[in-house]
Amino acid sequence: MDHQASLACPKFSYDILSAMPFAFCTRERLPWTEFAESAENGVTTKFCQELAKKYNMVIVSPILERDELHGETLWNTAVVISNTGAVLGKSRKNHIPRVGDFNESTYYMEGNTGHRVFQTAYGKIAVNICYGRHHPLNWLMYSTNGAEIIFNPSATVGELSESLWPIEARNAAIANHCFTCPINRVGTEHFENEFTSGDGKEAHNDFGYFYGSSYVAAPDGSRTPGLSRVCDGLLIAEMDLNLCRQTNDKWNFKVSTSSNKNMQNRPHKYQHFFTDNHVRVYSHIGVEV
Amino acid sequence: MDHQASLACPKFSYDILSAMPFAFCTRERLPWTEFAESAENGVTTKFCQELAKKYNMVIVSPILERDELHGETLWNTAVVISNTGAVLGKSRKNHIPRVGDFNESTYYMEGNTGHRVFQTAYGKIAVNICYGRHHPLNWLMYSTNGAEIIFNPSATVGELSESLWPIEARNAAIANHCFTCPINRVGTEHFENEFTSGDGKEAHNDFGYFYGSSYVAAPDGSRTPGLSRVCDGLLIAEMDLNLCRQTNDKWNFKVSTSSNKNMQNRPHKYQHFFTDNHVRVYSHIGVEV
Repeated sequence: MDHQASLACPKFSYDILSAMPFAFCTRERLPWTEFAESAENGVTTKFCQELAKKYNMVIVSPILERDELHGETLWNTAVVISNTGAVLGKSRKNHIPRVGDFNESTYYMEGNTGHRVFQTAYGKIAVNICYGRHHPLNWLMYSTNGAEIIFNPSATVGELSESLWPIEARNAAIANHCFTCPINRVGTEHFENEFTSGDGKEAHNDFGYFYGSSYVAAPDGSRTPGLSRVCDGLLIAEMDLNLCRQTNDKWNFKVSTSSNKNMQNRPHKYQHFFTDNHVRVYSHIGVEV
Repeated sequence: MDHQASLACPKFSYDILSAMPFAFCTRERLPWTEFAESAENGVTTKFCQELAKKYNMVIVSPILERDELHGETLWNTAVVISNTGAVLGKSRKNHIPRVGDFNESTYYMEGNTGHRVFQTAYGKIAVNICYGRHHPLNWLMYSTNGAEIIFNPSATVGELSESLWPIEARNAAIANHCFTCPINRVGTEHFENEFTSGDGKEAHNDFGYFYGSSYVAAPDGSRTPGLSRVCDGLLIAEMDLNLCRQTNDKWNFKVSTSSNKNMQNRPHKYQHFFTDNHVRVYSHIGVEV
């Protein structure tokens, strides 16, 4: 990390729940819930605050959150830490898979933090966690709230989703005139106790192969090469955030989507989407608004 | 066409406004508006009805529509013709570009037919016309209304959109558990009178190069090779419509998107989307419902 940070990367995001194995496939409570920690005061946050301040770097830190103020509820959460070391706020995963080995609703449910956008020193960012990348509406809401860069910290395996990986976040960048950063871990994690996956197959001790392949996609449809499928990596990308507005002004997708006339001619389900579109920016004071 | 139909293709779609050049770039009224014709009784519809019946084939026929019953209003419309030769109904383009050379709102405005889905002998189909492919919500609405195959008849040129073409419809197939068929014409069309494009460049006589590259994408993220960039072509694809439900049942994106708990936790803008989700099927009687 010190080496990585010394490269002066102003924004940095780990993969999902980066401090623990992806243990939800086991459906075991213990010891996995012991990884849960406070978003504001947990050891991971404290650690990242020091790094962020030391390297003048915004950090997106995905953790298993224990909400100590509200009955020790668990959440899948990304903490956003300012380059000053302050906790800018947090964003909770809002689409929870019940797919194959993803037994995540055993541990936490859909988040209650809406589609927050964080004003950082390096741009307005949002975090669309993991499974949320499959939902175009989800990306849209972060974009509608003003995000210029949407991070997508993930932990996903080859057989399930690798064929979709190059398409979804890239399409979201195109559709929403913003940058997207899908991030995935690498390797296979072995668990002591065998578990089944609801797919008729025999019990096993691993979840599958996490295929890495993190990349950055731009509003014009271009993208970086992916990181390795097999090794940890650090992707350094220079993003010209002007491209968000430039692409918006070239294409005007939002004009077409949100014009009143357009809305009037659509099923009523459509009409509520853009009536109070506004940019919600979170203040840069280390206190969640 | 006879040769094409003899291949026993049960569903067939032309590119957008297939009977005329893409003349909207000129902003000239005449002679282009003379191509407009009735969706129900126009010569193109009559021609396609004969073909559809002769070859037991459903045809999606995009035309410049003249709504003779309502003040000769013009629309960008796709007529859906049953394999029996009946006009099943029509779907009007609902996102109208005002981009560069696309001066389409000079001629017609956003359609008023919502997101119709047509029950045909070969599956439930919808038509997301041209520019509508850039809008994930648009695909979603057709899918939510029950479409198993969504056609996207287009006329789009290289410099503007070719980098986006392989991504958007493919993502729509993934996100909505359905098949998508983006279709584009080929070649360059020359106009007698020069026109400008609102881009600071000199007046010119063509709109750009239509890059073809039509393809079919499946719910599992796979796709066919594209047709040629330079020649007319016919793409024959066998689609197992069971894959729509199979993929839905594997991934369950819609469970995650539409669960009540999920909605309650979201900004109110989200909540109206799925409250009366139902399949609207149009009867197979040759009369638009």
